[in-house]
Amino acid sequence: MKAGVIGAGRIGKVHIKNISMYVPEVEIKTVADPFMNAETEEFVRKCGVTKVTKDAEEILQDKEIEAVIICSSTDTHSKYIIEAAKAGKHIFCEKPVDYDLKKVHEAIDTAKEANVKLQIGFCRRFDHNHRGVYDVVRSGKIGDVHMIKISSRDPEPPCIDYVKVSGGIFYDMMIHDFDMARFLAGDEVVEVNAVGSVLVDPEIGNAGDVDTAVVTLKFAGGAIGMIDNSRKAVYGYDQRVEVFGSKGCVRNENDIPNTVIVSDAENTSYANTYSVMWDRYTGAFVSEIQAFADAVVNNKETPVTGMDGLYPVLMAAAATRSAREGRPVKIAEVE
Amino acid sequence: MKAGVIGAGRIGKVHIKNISMYVPEVEIKTVADPFMNAETEEFVRKCGVTKVTKDAEEILQDKEIEAVIICSSTDTHSKYIIEAAKAGKHIFCEKPVDYDLKKVHEAIDTAKEANVKLQIGFCRRFDHNHRGVYDVVRSGKIGDVHMIKISSRDPEPPCIDYVKVSGGIFYDMMIHDFDMARFLAGDEVVEVNAVGSVLVDPEIGNAGDVDTAVVTLKFAGGAIGMIDNSRKAVYGYDQRVEVFGSKGCVRNENDIPNTVIVSDAENTSYANTYSVMWDRYTGAFVSEIQAFADAVVNNKETPVTGMDGLYPVLMAAAATRSAREGRPVKIAEVE
Amino acid sequence: MKAGVIGAGRIGKVHIKNISMYVPEVEIKTVADPFMNAETEEFVRKCGVTKVTKDAEEILQDKEIEAVIICSSTDTHSKYIIEAAKAGKHIFCEKPVDYDLKKVHEAIDTAKEANVKLQIGFCRRFDHNHRGVYDVVRSGKIGDVHMIKISSRDPEPPCIDYVKVSGGIFYDMMIHDFDMARFLAGDEVVEVNAVGSVLVDPEIGNAGDVDTAVVTLKFAGGAIGMIDNSRKAVYGYDQRVEVFGSKGCVRNENDIPNTVIVSDAENTSYANTYSVMWDRYTGAFVSEIQAFADAVVNNKETPVTGMDGLYPVLMAAAATRSAREGRPVKIAEVE
Amino acid sequence: MKAGVIGAGRIGKVHIKNISMYVPEVEIKTVADPFMNAETEEFVRKCGVTKVTKDAEEILQDKEIEAVIICSSTDTHSKYIIEAAKAGKHIFCEKPVDYDLKKVHEAIDTAKEANVKLQIGFCRRFDHNHRGVYDVVRSGKIGDVHMIKISSRDPEPPCIDYVKVSGGIFYDMMIHDFDMARFLAGDEVVEVNAVGSVLVDPEIGNAGDVDTAVVTLKFAGGAIGMIDNSRKAVYGYDQRVEVFGSKGCVRNENDIPNTVIVSDAENTSYANTYSVMWDRYTGAFVSEIQAFADAVVNNKETPVTGMDGLYPVLMAAAATRSAREGRPVKIAEVE
Repeated sequence: MKAGVIGAGRIGKVHIKNISMYVPEVEIKTVADPFMNAETEEFVRKCGVTKVTKDAEEILQDKEIEAVIICSSTDTHSKYIIEAAKAGKHIFCEKPVDYDLKKVHEAIDTAKEANVKLQIGFCRRFDHNHRGVYDVVRSGKIGDVHMIKISSRDPEPPCIDYVKVSGGIFYDMMIHDFDMARFLAGDEVVEVNAVGSVLVDPEIGNAGDVDTAVVTLKFAGGAIGMIDNSRKAVYGYDQRVEVFGSKGCVRNENDIPNTVIVSDAENTSYANTYSVMWDRYTGAFVSEIQAFADAVVNNKETPVTGMDGLYPVLMAAAATRSAREGRPVKIAEVE
Repeated sequence: MKAGVIGAGRIGKVHIKNISMYVPEVEIKTVADPFMNAETEEFVRKCGVTKVTKDAEEILQDKEIEAVIICSSTDTHSKYIIEAAKAGKHIFCEKPVDYDLKKVHEAIDTAKEANVKLQIGFCRRFDHNHRGVYDVVRSGKIGDVHMIKISSRDPEPPCIDYVKVSGGIFYDMMIHDFDMARFLAGDEVVEVNAVGSVLVDPEIGNAGDVDTAVVTLKFAGGAIGMIDNSRKAVYGYDQRVEVFGSKGCVRNENDIPNTVIVSDAENTSYANTYSVMWDRYTGAFVSEIQAFADAVVNNKETPVTGMDGLYPVLMAAAATRSAREGRPVKIAEVE
Repeated sequence: MKAGVIGAGRIGKVHIKNISMYVPEVEIKTVADPFMNAETEEFVRKCGVTKVTKDAEEILQDKEIEAVIICSSTDTHSKYIIEAAKAGKHIFCEKPVDYDLKKVHEAIDTAKEANVKLQIGFCRRFDHNHRGVYDVVRSGKIGDVHMIKISSRDPEPPCIDYVKVSGGIFYDMMIHDFDMARFLAGDEVVEVNAVGSVLVDPEIGNAGDVDTAVVTLKFAGGAIGMIDNSRKAVYGYDQRVEVFGSKGCVRNENDIPNTVIVSDAENTSYANTYSVMWDRYTGAFVSEIQAFADAVVNNKETPVTGMDGLYPVLMAAAATRSAREGRPVKIAEVE
Repeated sequence: MKAGVIGAGRIGKVHIKNISMYVPEVEIKTVADPFMNAETEEFVRKCGVTKVTKDAEEILQDKEIEAVIICSSTDTHSKYIIEAAKAGKHIFCEKPVDYDLKKVHEAIDTAKEANVKLQIGFCRRFDHNHRGVYDVVRSGKIGDVHMIKISSRDPEPPCIDYVKVSGGIFYDMMIHDFDMARFLAGDEVVEVNAVGSVLVDPEIGNAGDVDTAVVTLKFAGGAIGMIDNSRKAVYGYDQRVEVFGSKGCVRNENDIPNTVIVSDAENTSYANTYSVMWDRYTGAFVSEIQAFADAVVNNKETPVTGMDGLYPVLMAAAATRSAREGRPVKIAEVE
């Protein structure tokens, strides 16, 4: 299967490299990026791709290309989904589809009408530790789900310029956890209560955002979820989930670079978790793109559908309003 | 120092035994219990106490007795505190002082006026694991407190008759966690948001209570707290806390009966935590009564004051109202 | 059952206190110690014992006393065992019975002829972690035993004066591990190879001993054992065992004072194990004396017999010779 | 740098793939294998290698090829090392160089005279967990090395035909641990004592080998080493090391596929370690070949020299004799 990649920034390069190394059934024919330069060209060529362009149209109009991987800036996601769908191409699109719910719906609907596959890049569903928890939950081993707890903390806040335009912590950071909560629960959220504080950096507060946030989720079936986010965990990228059920509890710990344990006169210690997201989720990026290839090649449902792209945006909208208004907000209020 | 114990039920017996074994500076002179019987008398005698009675007045009017340990039913706590205080005796009283805030205030005020020590039995503050977390937080090692997470799950729900009169999960179970949250934060809670579900046993719902509850706390200083409770964790008494701060994170794991790790062809496993509260908090009960003796004998402030007894009741009141009304409730609303 | 304790040094006091607190079926009538002083008398009295003496004969000749707990110096163990046995008293004797094999045999034989119970104080068999491993091995869960590994390291070397007279590391320290190896294997050792070095303190070498030692054991059934000892582990009292079998592996970790885990910018750390033997094996001392009382009162075989006292001495003798001669030594050579 | 690979069996393929994916400074020009077939050709081609041959001479005589990676059968290692050295090519050779010490010396000497790099494929030195322990030891954090413990257990015995010709457990399996012991100790072994048993499969005994083996090592500086091997650990590939020193202790645990922890009514469990060597040491194979490329390209000493290839063979020879003769054997006896 021939594919095109639109957007060759950080995440685009990761997908290009992973496809070349781990996804033999996909051949990247063309990479498009409006800022295509010599360095990127060199990188792309080393990954076995021969054609580069600044114009995404060259991909969208290439009949030979069956699938498009959209890694461009968020504001172009829905546009490219719609164009690719109309051109009959299967689509992998980085999260989020868009923050404008109307555009999200339009993108999903167009893909559906065109009968093309659409997968949203919620890579954490493919992480070995989170997937391991998911598998235990789905196996029934812990019975009915009663509570879901997600800790998700970044090692460093993003730069203030990003904070100003990102849509806020619920849209740019907790959106992954909203997806994870739904994924683990196997149920939909009906109400959200968000609490936020500015504890890490007052500049974040000045930019209208919070840097520490806790959200409580009510699921349709009665289960309760909790998510905590911090923009700054000095000990690294802290990513843990726990699901408590009628027959038991399953949780995971952070990955660490090695298993070395040192005991000296003072205490016993081991390595902190990774401080770089790309190190922590290395395998997840590989697995998600393999899953997309598998869905297209073997004509299966994609494991993260367009609707899976929509719901976390709804949750982010509800959380943002909840934090602002100091009250629980129903998903139905923001739909 | 001579002491009297009012109430020789389960918790009373624990204190009597612990004092006889681990608190050499205290001699229990008298044990009073309206249901005093031969079995209890035998137990008490083995602990070196010679005088038993059905009438608490024999303790309250005994000039030789300097301290009273109140382990009677909750509805008599404030009454005995007031009487003991007026008799000039130092007081250790099991939690909660009362659910009626007026009575709590009256008890605290009377003890204050009488200038006697008053310690409330929030034993978990003395647990080696929770105290260990507290010590790290207070040492400044993790910097400013940003988030507090408390998981507190019982192995089995109480009997339905108890559920009907206990005041509900926020009063009878989460009250310990409310105390723990304040203890770890070193700050006061200003607002509470509670979510509850009936997932364990519909009878609990019929009794007007929930069996699964999650509470979010806003502290005065901006920190955020989360508490989750379940009436039924099949794997045992699950008691973990985590404090996240500007310079790090500290948490604890459950105690387990031994450190044995077995690897067979299937997986690697170890023992579950204790399923009986008394096994889990054995050392905590010893330490709290030692701390009380220390406070009285060496004229120190008690480590859990009357006000420490008041605040968790306020939080329980706010949480109860929050769960009922589906909105965050300020502590100021229930004071 | 009335008992007498001969020897009220450190270990004697531990047994006296434990019996008074945890072994209701035993009443200590008399404590004898040639160096009995006011302080010891006070301690003993607090434990509810009223009679103290400098003369062990007062115990041995007291018809009312059914059981003797021998905690005197090693050189008097066999003498008191023989006398107590002849007086028809059941015997708990601290390890080792004696380093002179002839005396050990005589003591065991006399107890056998007199038909009295004899238990040797290998307390580690009663430790919750080691017992937990033993239980898994005996349950058959890991199949046939193939290998046994024991790490046993002290926080500090004993004083040089003790090293000079102790009989050496294999007699005074590894003897516990020799017992543990037999206990876990459920089989007898037939050959021993010992390697020793002086790495901790040259004074220990000057005293004719080693401070770091590794012993390999061949069991009759083909299993292989390894024991490592060091006189100085700066991180505490390190006591771990591992049993590898045809169907799995079971091991334990050190106990730690609490489960607190701290992550800061540098690493993640937790508390070291105990640095004091009495803290580490607190529960084991209680359990072993309870087991002795149970054996006597309910007429069961003691869980550590006289022969269990003999074999580790044989192993120590073989290990000492092996280290000296630089060759494996068969147990049959030293019997 | 252009390289040739001699031998395209399992390990050869791993190196070819890793070079193509992770070692950009090396280009494999030719792959030679006497059993070259269509399948291997296809594999090699996908890795970007265009030239395949059945004749190693095509590599050895190709002036353009600067480095040779020898992955052929053990009996051809020394021959190819010598030929490659004489042709002036740098050499990476799989372990062991040879079991015939004369041949090992000749190979090493020839490489030395030809002034070419020689690296032996002891991949475990590059494993993140073992390397992590090594780094702590070398940092001085645990002080002087007193003891080294290595557990190395395979999930399944090799087929009996292999056992018959492999040279025995000390040559084909423990040789990795001999290398690890020297690597961690930073010192040479002077004496070896080996104990072996047939506990896994009597057929292994019939073939003249043992399947369970424990070796004690004396290092020149006085440190003591212990290695235990089993041909069959039902719970997976068990690879752990521990180094105990004057200032502390460092050890590692097995890698596991994920960090998921499940608590149900019975116990708490997590995943076993890997059961396939290639999964366990994936990263190590990459790192060792990167290290070789680095040594050649940047003209550094290789991290595993020819002498590092020699010593483990000496230790295997000594261990084999020790097990046979039932006595410690000095390395000097087998040199």
